[in-house]
Amino acid sequence: MKLYGDSQSGNCYKIQLVCAMLAIPHQWIAVDILAGETRSAAFLRKNPNGKIPTLELDDGRTLSESNAIINYLAADSDLLPKDTFTLAKMQQWQCFEQYSHEPYIAVARFIAKYQSMPASRQAEYKAKQSGGYLALGVMEQQLAATPYLCGDQLTNADISLYAYTHVAHEGGFELERYPAILAWLGRVEATPGFIAMA
Amino acid sequence: MKLYGDSQSGNCYKIQLVCAMLAIPHQWIAVDILAGETRSAAFLRKNPNGKIPTLELDDGRTLSESNAIINYLAADSDLLPKDTFTLAKMQQWQCFEQYSHEPYIAVARFIAKYQSMPASRQAEYKAKQSGGYLALGVMEQQLAATPYLCGDQLTNADISLYAYTHVAHEGGFELERYPAILAWLGRVEATPGFIAMA
Ligand SMILES: N[C@@H](CCC(=O)N[C@@H](CS)C(=O)NCC(=O)O)C(=O)O
Ligand SMILES: N[C@@H](CCC(=O)N[C@@H](CS)C(=O)NCC(=O)O)C(=O)O
Repeated sequence: MKLYGDSQSGNCYKIQLVCAMLAIPHQWIAVDILAGETRSAAFLRKNPNGKIPTLELDDGRTLSESNAIINYLAADSDLLPKDTFTLAKMQQWQCFEQYSHEPYIAVARFIAKYQSMPASRQAEYKAKQSGGYLALGVMEQQLAATPYLCGDQLTNADISLYAYTHVAHEGGFELERYPAILAWLGRVEATPGFIAMA
Repeated sequence: MKLYGDSQSGNCYKIQLVCAMLAIPHQWIAVDILAGETRSAAFLRKNPNGKIPTLELDDGRTLSESNAIINYLAADSDLLPKDTFTLAKMQQWQCFEQYSHEPYIAVARFIAKYQSMPASRQAEYKAKQSGGYLALGVMEQQLAATPYLCGDQLTNADISLYAYTHVAHEGGFELERYPAILAWLGRVEATPGFIAMA
């Protein structure tokens, strides 16, 4: 099994984290987005949407989208709830991550950390702050009520949202305002098999 | 079971379509976003993220995010693939919809159709076109190879992507350029139980 990714990307780190927690052997292939490697014909055959992470099974089948990949890899593990409603809640949080969290927090971090805040993107960076804080508020409310996003157990919802939340300060977000989120970050980090982002 | 939604929203229509195809009885409760109804304290108790669609079960538990809701409602049906890899592919397409399709195509449609293209959003509307066309290109490539997004069977991936693709022209997208997508729209519409968007 081959994983195409970039260790600095939170979306790719989700996969590394699940592989570490579940001790899943794999070959990591570093892809350089800025060098155009996700736009090569060879890569587009693996993922026509031209994005990492992308998984390639030994038989050549491929799978993309970070949350789909981690759910596939964790299919037989405790990271996926057995109960149908809790499983749906996990998907709810993963959709929330893709739609209401990542586009604000990960993009603000990208502009600030990797692009060193160019003048051309300052307005966009500012606009990302309110959406990101809204998302953190929604998480805080849940995590003040339950230790993990779907209740008493760590699930892939926590993996998906840990990825960019724990580096949200790099996008200008003040995590100190969110005590329940801070406590939850600590719980995720204390999970057996946890590895830090590169 | 209560469904909070707006019949003009593609995200809400996904739920209506699955309920129609699977004959799931439910009470539809119209929510007026422009009147601020998703921001009321009562609604925020059901979905702290303040968005429709939101499902409320008879026991009071709630679930949001359109794709999580339809997967929950279809849990025991043929709309969810039984095979683990195909199920992951379905989730891949649903993540693609939320991240690479809806934010371009649905937003362009909203600006053009519901806001009548205000001058303040014309640049954003234009910027949405390239992302939307990229997404349509990715779909076309898959649908030229298989009748449905995950292969030979209609799944929730098709429901999720049908919702805003079939009205993409309202966002300025020329669907005539995509013969495989047009044929697929016809196949979805010929499915037993299909209902048109309001
Ligand atoms: N929804 C996707 C997002 C993946 C994504 O945006 N990947 C970025 C790196 S973090 C990428 O490959 N960007 C290259 C590009 O879009 O051209 C996921 O969750 O996997
Ligand atoms: N990712 C969500 C998106 C839901 C969404 O954006 N809903 C819109 C209507 S289509 C809404 O409720 N907007 C009100 C708001 O954001 O305040 C889903 O798939 O359900």
